[in-house]
Amino acid sequence: MVDTLKDKSIQLSHGGGGKEMNKLIRDLFFAEFDNPILRSEEDAAKLDLHGANAFTTDSFTVSPLFFAGGDIGKLAIAGTVNDLAMMGAEPQYLSCSVIIEEGFSIKDLTTIVRSMAKELKQSGARIVCGDTKVVPKGCADGLFINTSGIGRILRPNISAANVTVGDAIIVSRDIGCHGAAILMAREGLTLESALQSDCATLWPIVEQLIAANIPIHAMRDATRGGLSAVLNEWAIASNVGITVNEASIPVSDEVKGLCELYGFEAMDLANEGTFILAVPNDIALGALEIMQRFGHCEHAAIIGTVSDELVGKVVLRTPWNTKRYLDLPQGELLPRIC
Amino acid sequence: MVDTLKDKSIQLSHGGGGKEMNKLIRDLFFAEFDNPILRSEEDAAKLDLHGANAFTTDSFTVSPLFFAGGDIGKLAIAGTVNDLAMMGAEPQYLSCSVIIEEGFSIKDLTTIVRSMAKELKQSGARIVCGDTKVVPKGCADGLFINTSGIGRILRPNISAANVTVGDAIIVSRDIGCHGAAILMAREGLTLESALQSDCATLWPIVEQLIAANIPIHAMRDATRGGLSAVLNEWAIASNVGITVNEASIPVSDEVKGLCELYGFEAMDLANEGTFILAVPNDIALGALEIMQRFGHCEHAAIIGTVSDELVGKVVLRTPWNTKRYLDLPQGELLPRIC
Repeated sequence: MVDTLKDKSIQLSHGGGGKEMNKLIRDLFFAEFDNPILRSEEDAAKLDLHGANAFTTDSFTVSPLFFAGGDIGKLAIAGTVNDLAMMGAEPQYLSCSVIIEEGFSIKDLTTIVRSMAKELKQSGARIVCGDTKVVPKGCADGLFINTSGIGRILRPNISAANVTVGDAIIVSRDIGCHGAAILMAREGLTLESALQSDCATLWPIVEQLIAANIPIHAMRDATRGGLSAVLNEWAIASNVGITVNEASIPVSDEVKGLCELYGFEAMDLANEGTFILAVPNDIALGALEIMQRFGHCEHAAIIGTVSDELVGKVVLRTPWNTKRYLDLPQGELLPRIC
Repeated sequence: MVDTLKDKSIQLSHGGGGKEMNKLIRDLFFAEFDNPILRSEEDAAKLDLHGANAFTTDSFTVSPLFFAGGDIGKLAIAGTVNDLAMMGAEPQYLSCSVIIEEGFSIKDLTTIVRSMAKELKQSGARIVCGDTKVVPKGCADGLFINTSGIGRILRPNISAANVTVGDAIIVSRDIGCHGAAILMAREGLTLESALQSDCATLWPIVEQLIAANIPIHAMRDATRGGLSAVLNEWAIASNVGITVNEASIPVSDEVKGLCELYGFEAMDLANEGTFILAVPNDIALGALEIMQRFGHCEHAAIIGTVSDELVGKVVLRTPWNTKRYLDLPQGELLPRIC
């Protein structure tokens, strides 16, 4: 525990490689992330790995650090674990590297590290190595976290290039909540409703889909660039056309309202615990049923189909039965949402 | 190539997850780091791994970004590759995650990414996954890079806890050059001599030591906290006493001069291409001979011995034959040296 550190703030010496850094690492990071591999304290963790593994990295710069439904710590774990899960990989080993601004509250840092430790329990992944840097005041904005991760691939054929004509497109829940929650926090808005980020670890639900032998063709969490980015990448990588029914896409009233107010498209907004699946059409209802059993996925829905028409494009069919292309987002979207 | 991007600066949209980000990633990172695994463009890289692997992470925040003997890009590759090499692991797969301040010069970014690509050739490691974040002006200082790495462990018993009574302690070259070069760059000093950072990839020399079957007990690059930090960690982790002959420690006149001027100890200064070895005493001269054949290690020297006296402590024997404890550094050392 960090009782001797509380009420204090991070000093440059906490990143200097000497006594103070050792104490911070032991009293905070080792204490919260404790496991035998981390405790070995070598230059690198020793892992016993066999066969196909997924390896991913993400840096988190979200502002504000605390928002409705999560914080940068929860996000840093869920984000990297989800990148592994989306490859059909069981998340196993994570690294944690922090860049802290001098003067940052050790109380807040402790809250964030505990939030990371709590979120790790959702997947069973462990932090096995780390790095701590401190930069002078004004050289960073509070705290940045990088997490990289390794996971054992259980389903090797899931790929953005594997979306197949005849597939159904499923979204796991209502979209845009993370982007909207960050926007709300940043603008100081308080809605009467309880709009929260969707930030969540997706491995438990992916594990169920894999256990049920759902033949997943493609799977991707819709983070920066939202649903639009994922579908456009798939259409190009798989050389198919994707048609989406706008009326089928679940969007909460709160997210719709914020989009109208600020001129965003819900389909471009970032999510941090929402994923898109491409599965054979005759499997889609079965997959949906498995997903809807999960608290996080009650609103999972089939939103589109895959064809060999308008290859490389995503077509949005509006509620008025008109059609338009859904493009890859461009320009200045919300910065620092993850 | 990034010809269409040159003379331009990084915009928030380069981190937005849409068209601009895709273009930056393809035209710069993919172009320079090109390899089949990276090109797959999934959420995570797919790796085939077998047996004992080392996994490490480092974030680089060095200031200034360019210094005599290197830049943040070279440092980010050498630093992570060296952490793997120090575990007796062949560096294989690296991630590259950047946090870029809005307005950062794309020309400088290109120089840095090319410097990374060049340094990768020293070990044969490949960048297989990455992440790009852009934060608004004032929220970061130019550029931060995180590299995490995976390598196949060829010698499993190298450990800070494996230093043995009777071992000799070897340092691979003259110490303190990186810290001194950063200090010099930051203070705007220009010495007549060519003081340069020691920043270098150590795998080629470690590979030779392994190939020669040198029974390495412990091996560590002396980064933050310098030689003092490594030796103190070893003395505690291995429950031994380490005695070092100050006169045997190679220190250049330039580093000595800067230390006198600024009140630093060369033994506390950071290195980025200098490592310490503990090997059985009767092997030490053989190891030294192998090392001295390498351009980077002409000044390699045996600097100390390991005993069962004053366990957990590092004793420095001065040129006047007095003794003092060499402590773990503390307080504000040079910030942002790596």
